Amino acid sequence: MTDVQVRAERLLMGPGPVNVYPVALETASRPMMGHLDPLFLDILDETNDRLRTVFGTSNVLTFPISGTGSAGMQAAFVNWVAPGDVVVVGVNGVFGDRMCDVAERLGAEVVRVDHEWGQPVDPERVLGAHPSPDIIAVVHAETSTGVRSDIAPIGAGKGDALLLVDCVTSIGGIPVEADDWGIDIAYAGTQKCLGAAPGLAPFTASDRALDRMLDRPSSWYLDLNLIATYVRGDGSGRAYHHTAPINEIRALHAVLGAMLEEGLENVQARHRACGAALVDGLTGLGFTPYAAEGHRLPHLATAYLPDGFDDASNRRTLLDDYDIEVGGGLGDAAGKIWRVSTMGHSARMTNVNRLLAALGNLI
Amino acid sequence: MTDVQVRAERLLMGPGPVNVYPVALETASRPMMGHLDPLFLDILDETNDRLRTVFGTSNVLTFPISGTGSAGMQAAFVNWVAPGDVVVVGVNGVFGDRMCDVAERLGAEVVRVDHEWGQPVDPERVLGAHPSPDIIAVVHAETSTGVRSDIAPIGAGKGDALLLVDCVTSIGGIPVEADDWGIDIAYAGTQKCLGAAPGLAPFTASDRALDRMLDRPSSWYLDLNLIATYVRGDGSGRAYHHTAPINEIRALHAVLGAMLEEGLENVQARHRACGAALVDGLTGLGFTPYAAEGHRLPHLATAYLPDGFDDASNRRTLLDDYDIEVGGGLGDAAGKIWRVSTMGHSARMTNVNRLLAALGNLI
Repeated sequence: MTDVQVRAERLLMGPGPVNVYPVALETASRPMMGHLDPLFLDILDETNDRLRTVFGTSNVLTFPISGTGSAGMQAAFVNWVAPGDVVVVGVNGVFGDRMCDVAERLGAEVVRVDHEWGQPVDPERVLGAHPSPDIIAVVHAETSTGVRSDIAPIGAGKGDALLLVDCVTSIGGIPVEADDWGIDIAYAGTQKCLGAAPGLAPFTASDRALDRMLDRPSSWYLDLNLIATYVRGDGSGRAYHHTAPINEIRALHAVLGAMLEEGLENVQARHRACGAALVDGLTGLGFTPYAAEGHRLPHLATAYLPDGFDDASNRRTLLDDYDIEVGGGLGDAAGKIWRVSTMGHSARMTNVNRLLAALGNLI
Repeated sequence: MTDVQVRAERLLMGPGPVNVYPVALETASRPMMGHLDPLFLDILDETNDRLRTVFGTSNVLTFPISGTGSAGMQAAFVNWVAPGDVVVVGVNGVFGDRMCDVAERLGAEVVRVDHEWGQPVDPERVLGAHPSPDIIAVVHAETSTGVRSDIAPIGAGKGDALLLVDCVTSIGGIPVEADDWGIDIAYAGTQKCLGAAPGLAPFTASDRALDRMLDRPSSWYLDLNLIATYVRGDGSGRAYHHTAPINEIRALHAVLGAMLEEGLENVQARHRACGAALVDGLTGLGFTPYAAEGHRLPHLATAYLPDGFDDASNRRTLLDDYDIEVGGGLGDAAGKIWRVSTMGHSARMTNVNRLLAALGNLI
């Protein structure tokens, strides 16, 4: 390995990726297996079962898409949006905005319901935006602002529409109850609260969604009709579609196993406790909360910088002199806020202490 | 780790994935880094330089797509095919057939030039199929048949068309000279001759191709305009598009480094020598070559089974009793041929001996 590969021993407390659980690293160093090996298919099946638990669903089609969280977003729209379909999007940050872009490119009539950044999506406004939308799409946990939106009221009022939800930064860290909340299509990421490497998008779709799926979406790679023949098998076995990212799936299997062994509620309590200590510390150092009270993600703090405290140079010093990564703001919030997380394996009180001590030196 | 994760110690000699170089496993077990970490961006830049070497190109836009080889195929078409564009595809196996499907879904007028499976693509037939195609697409090394097609004559005669080539199973194993052969768009996979895990699609596009790229392709995830702002940076630095599969890229960086240290010609000589010994051994055991003479891939043997030798049960015995994976045939060749490779870290004479000894016991 070259020097540059060896040097980095980062503590990752930005909006993701975060430090991965040791079991993910161990698993990633195991010898390769084939994507049609019965032993691997057992691992895939068990991974999908574990994903059902963290998604709060019994959906048959639940599996990791072969791409990052954004590939999950792409798959969620490309398999359901036909030209002219009405897609209502609740926008309160970068990822709601991205949903509009993804849907528009597929020919959707996008009805954008904009909210002030830092505020949650208002279910009533979203539900009232169009009389008969085909899809209503919202982000559960906005990574760009640290805000949690309420999904259940949208599910309760969705009527004939499909409810499509981005769970990238919520899954594993706070409760996600896809079935109870009426979610039809959801995708997530592996590099946030699941504490694995980026590269997969956990995905789930309800039977109601499967009934309305396009027969031949414009993307061959993300065509769920074809992928299902591998993930679930058809009558005659598991058919090859594309070669699955085997190592990433094995690592996901391992971290989900570790999380369920720790207990999902215990994992979330750890995320909350570390996040609360972090926010206390940041406030003491002069940071001011950015996200709306009552809707702050417990594991992703967003805060205005103290007066006179420079964004870029201080993030660079944290990285270079302390090996700690935190995130800056995006869009209008760039230069004004930081995004600091306690997710996955990074959600340890010692890490919070280490970051606050370093910050104390910088301020 | 659960039992099922620990048990598998496979020798992978199918059409891919194959065993990965030890340095890939070591790298995959390193602590995570951020996708905007300057140290990681250095690794990405160096990875792209190394990919230029194995692609035989100086193309500025050369990088790994965040998905498997099939995502590379999707990216190659979705960024260039507008509805009504004429796409000539030379089809001589599964992956040429897949190209037609991918292009049709994007609204292309596909001109399909079918060849008998096991035969190479005929450059004259492909070049004569349409007077003014927008794109001519062929597969360099057909994984389904073990056949190598000649690319240079197509590049020499392509006229105003863009030449799009699938290099999934050729890259690293046999010479690929994108610039000399007139290739405009090419993609590859990591799990064949590069000897890394599946999950990335090395990609390259010529300046000529970049000039004709769509401004707003239907896929947001694979939009090369946006991805380039991260991979190459724009005037103001490297912009976030999606979170790169960091660990996979670091592993690719490491295997490419190891290959270039061994010497690309030495790697290919090793692939050839192991492949030749394998074919000798298979022939001695009663297998008969399937691919056309003069166009057989040196590192992926395809052969008809000996009389009375069952496909599925013998592959299962090899896997269960010897921990060795080989591949069966696809499409019309299913049940009739095997596909056996010497690729990546699997390309070792001891592995060839181990497989032939096991096969000797089965026949």
